[in-house]
This record gives sequence, structure tokens and C-alpha cells, in this order.
Amino acid sequence: MDQQIKIVRAFQIKAGTGQHIEDSVTRESPFTIFLNDKELVTLLSTAEHLDELAVGFLKSEGFLKAKEDIKNISVDLNEGTAKIYAPKAVIAEQTFLKRYITTGCGKGTSFYHLTDAVCQPVEQGFKIKSDMIFELMLQAQRRSELFKMTGGVHSSALCNNEEILYFREDIGRHNTVDKLIGRCFLDGVDTADKLLLTTGRISSEILIKVAKTGVPLIASRSAPTDLAIKHAEELGVTIVAFVRNQRMNIYTYPERVIY
Amino acid sequence: MDQQIKIVRAFQIKAGTGQHIEDSVTRESPFTIFLNDKELVTLLSTAEHLDELAVGFLKSEGFLKAKEDIKNISVDLNEGTAKIYAPKAVIAEQTFLKRYITTGCGKGTSFYHLTDAVCQPVEQGFKIKSDMIFELMLQAQRRSELFKMTGGVHSSALCNNEEILYFREDIGRHNTVDKLIGRCFLDGVDTADKLLLTTGRISSEILIKVAKTGVPLIASRSAPTDLAIKHAEELGVTIVAFVRNQRMNIYTYPERVIY
Repeated sequence: MDQQIKIVRAFQIKAGTGQHIEDSVTRESPFTIFLNDKELVTLLSTAEHLDELAVGFLKSEGFLKAKEDIKNISVDLNEGTAKIYAPKAVIAEQTFLKRYITTGCGKGTSFYHLTDAVCQPVEQGFKIKSDMIFELMLQAQRRSELFKMTGGVHSSALCNNEEILYFREDIGRHNTVDKLIGRCFLDGVDTADKLLLTTGRISSEILIKVAKTGVPLIASRSAPTDLAIKHAEELGVTIVAFVRNQRMNIYTYPERVIY
Repeated sequence: MDQQIKIVRAFQIKAGTGQHIEDSVTRESPFTIFLNDKELVTLLSTAEHLDELAVGFLKSEGFLKAKEDIKNISVDLNEGTAKIYAPKAVIAEQTFLKRYITTGCGKGTSFYHLTDAVCQPVEQGFKIKSDMIFELMLQAQRRSELFKMTGGVHSSALCNNEEILYFREDIGRHNTVDKLIGRCFLDGVDTADKLLLTTGRISSEILIKVAKTGVPLIASRSAPTDLAIKHAEELGVTIVAFVRNQRMNIYTYPERVIY
């Protein structure tokens, strides 16, 4: 926890009286990814599972295709760097620049342009009971230790029909998903029969990250956007949102949810 | 509202029973900014106040210095584009590329590297009563119509010591702040005696956007990060967070808040 949390002094005003307090805040660390000795990108993230974040980002962005392409991964927590060696993972610099130029704070647009090229519709076989989605969401909330301490992070979880397999927290909504994608990529997890839970809103870039991994269902306590719903329809992904108080709204492919 | 909201069909499961419903979701639209006929960046945003978003983004990123530099602004809602003509606003392409290459989903790092160069410490004179911060936060919550309808947006407000001057909502936390920055830039608002309220977490990039505009105090219902606190100390900005239930935590320069 020490790497993710910093104790700071604050002045608390409560019901008209003030007092000095100590408080736990989330650490936000620049994290730079080098691919084949080339500086690629710097993310602001929570400094844990950085190998997953680096690999997940490279997979999401289309640099990595197969685990075997990775010859070496070295993470330096002090430097805040990851150095990935994957000789096959070469992309024309102009392509990458162009994508980043046309990409704002949400990396949505790069995905947006690439959707047709990169995304294949996910498999349709997966089904899950609505009660299990409620149960898994409850388990995920119980596990969010960093959030309990700081109130400042998002979390996402990859689950099968029975339990949470991987649970990741980060100050960045996108990073929680990239960490899960990286873990699955490194472990060779079959994602076709899994679902992804997240605390964050389901925007187009999150939806496409999930679709790219082949996960057929994403569930959130929060809201979806119209563009995420549009992509989910195209890519065959089930969006379940507003999962709270024994209620859920299913925006696409509701046949996957049994009730 | 029609441009910001889309009515979609959803299947709602509630207490074990299912029904088809109609629901309002936030529209998420790609918005491309052209500067002097050069495609600069595409943001995913809520399609309102796009002139402010374009100008605010260019100001935040250091392309625009003075309002007089802007010769023309044209926004095309159907195309989702803004074309800004500001002959003086020329930046070496390599500089811009480099910044975007070293920038992740949070644009924090570009700011991070530029802090010393671009940011001047804000003025120290501003003071406000804690009760007024509670009151303004309450007014901001009441005004968040889009959130009430969709649950899917962030909002930020620029206030003086008495009232909300500008209130902006967007699916992107950064966009709400850039819209306010754009409005202030276009109206020539003196920001040295204003505060900014936001629903989002106070991360380093949000803090630096606010500091760059010269706003001395930022308040949020949510949490700050350690890096935002570090920058706030350097730049003289007061961070007030967790403003809820008649309680607030002040992490930097508490002398600005009277109680």
C-alpha cells in the first residue's frame, strides 16, 4: 500500500470548527513506457502492476499481437519506467504520431478510427445470471481497499461466472482496464467466457478496449454513453450499467443476462 | 438538451423481473480542433459550448496567449469541428508531437514537463468563507441538469465570492475545465479573485490547468492526488476537497478559507 498512498497534512473545517488532520491521498506517478528502446508514452498512474499496465497499453494500442512477441519486460519503480523488448512490435512512427495527434484526453479517437480494422465482433455464447452480476459487483466493492482509504481511485475486475479472477485499482479509469488486459495477455487467459466490472463510466474508448480483448460483457455501477452503445451494438458486446440496489439496465444484447 | 442527450431502449432487471424501458444517455461526440487549417487534436466531448472548448484547449496547451491573437472561430456542429485562425499561434510541429507522444490518457505529463516554463504562481490576496464554498457547491449540484438526466457527466463552475458565473457540463472532466478557461479567455475575465468548483477528482493535470488560468482556489466533492497537492504547493493554489456534509479538507494554503 505504501507505494499507492501518501499521508499528508490537511486542515479540516467541519460544522464551523477547524482542525489539523492527517489524511491518506492517492499517489499519482508519471509512468513512461519504452518499446524497443523508444520512448512511447507517459501515463499518470497508480504505481502497482506496472508490467501489466505497460503490456496492456501496448496490446490495447495494437503494438503487441502475441505474448511470444515479448522478449523482455523490465519495470523500474524508482524511475517510473517500463522497458519492453518485442522486436516484431514495430509500427511506422508516422502512424503512431498521427494517432496521438488525433487523440485527446480520452484516447477514444484513435480507437474510433481503428475500430473496423482492429476489432472483431466478440463470441455470442456467453451467458450469466443477473444475481451473479449483483454478487460480483458487491465483492468488487468490498475489495476496493485503496478507494476506502483515499476515495480517489477507480477499480475494474475480470470475472468468470463464479468469482473475481483479477482486481485492479488505479487513479486512471483506462489504466484499470489496461492492467486487466495486460494480465490476461501475459497469462493467456481465454476472455470469451469472462465479464469485466468497472466503477467508471462506460465511454467509447473503454468499450472498445474491452471489445478488443474479446470480453463479451461489461458491467458498471455508472452510466454508458451513446457512442459506447453504438460500438457495443457493432461489436457484439453486452453493456450492463447502473448496477446498484438490485437494479441494472442492459443496453445491448440483453439475451446474455438470465434472470 | 437534444444535442447532449439521446433516448435509447434498454432492458431493465429489477428485483428479479425484467421490462423494456426508454432511457436517456449522454451523447459522446468526436470534436476535432483545427488551428490555422492544421488538424491539431480530436477530443471526445459533449457537443455544447464547443467554441469555448476549442479556445480553452488551445489556451491550456499554450497555443494562445492573448484574445487578440484569434482572428476567427468557426464551429460546425454537424462536422464536429472547430476552425480557429490565430496567425501568431504557431508552434514547432516537433514540439507538439513530442508533447503528445509523451502524453497518456491524462494529458498530465505534457503539463508536468511544462509547469516551470508556463505556470506562474497565482496571486495570494483571494479569501472566501467556508460557508460560501458549501453554498456554491450546493448551487452547482442543483444546476447539473444533464447529470440528473443521464448520470454520465462531470461539471465544473467558475464562481466569485457570491455566485456561480459560468457552469459547464461534459463527459470529460478535463473538458469542463477547458470550457470554463475558454469562456474566461473570450470574455477577458479576471480570474485572480475567482474559485473553480468541480465534480471530478483533483489530479495533477486539472490542478495545472486551473493554476495556468490564475484561479487561486479549486474545490471538489471528490479527492485530490499527491501530485496535484505537490503542484498546488509550488504554484500557490488552494486545494479544497471532499466538500460534502458541511465538511471540507484543505490541503494547501488554508489561509484563503475563512471559517
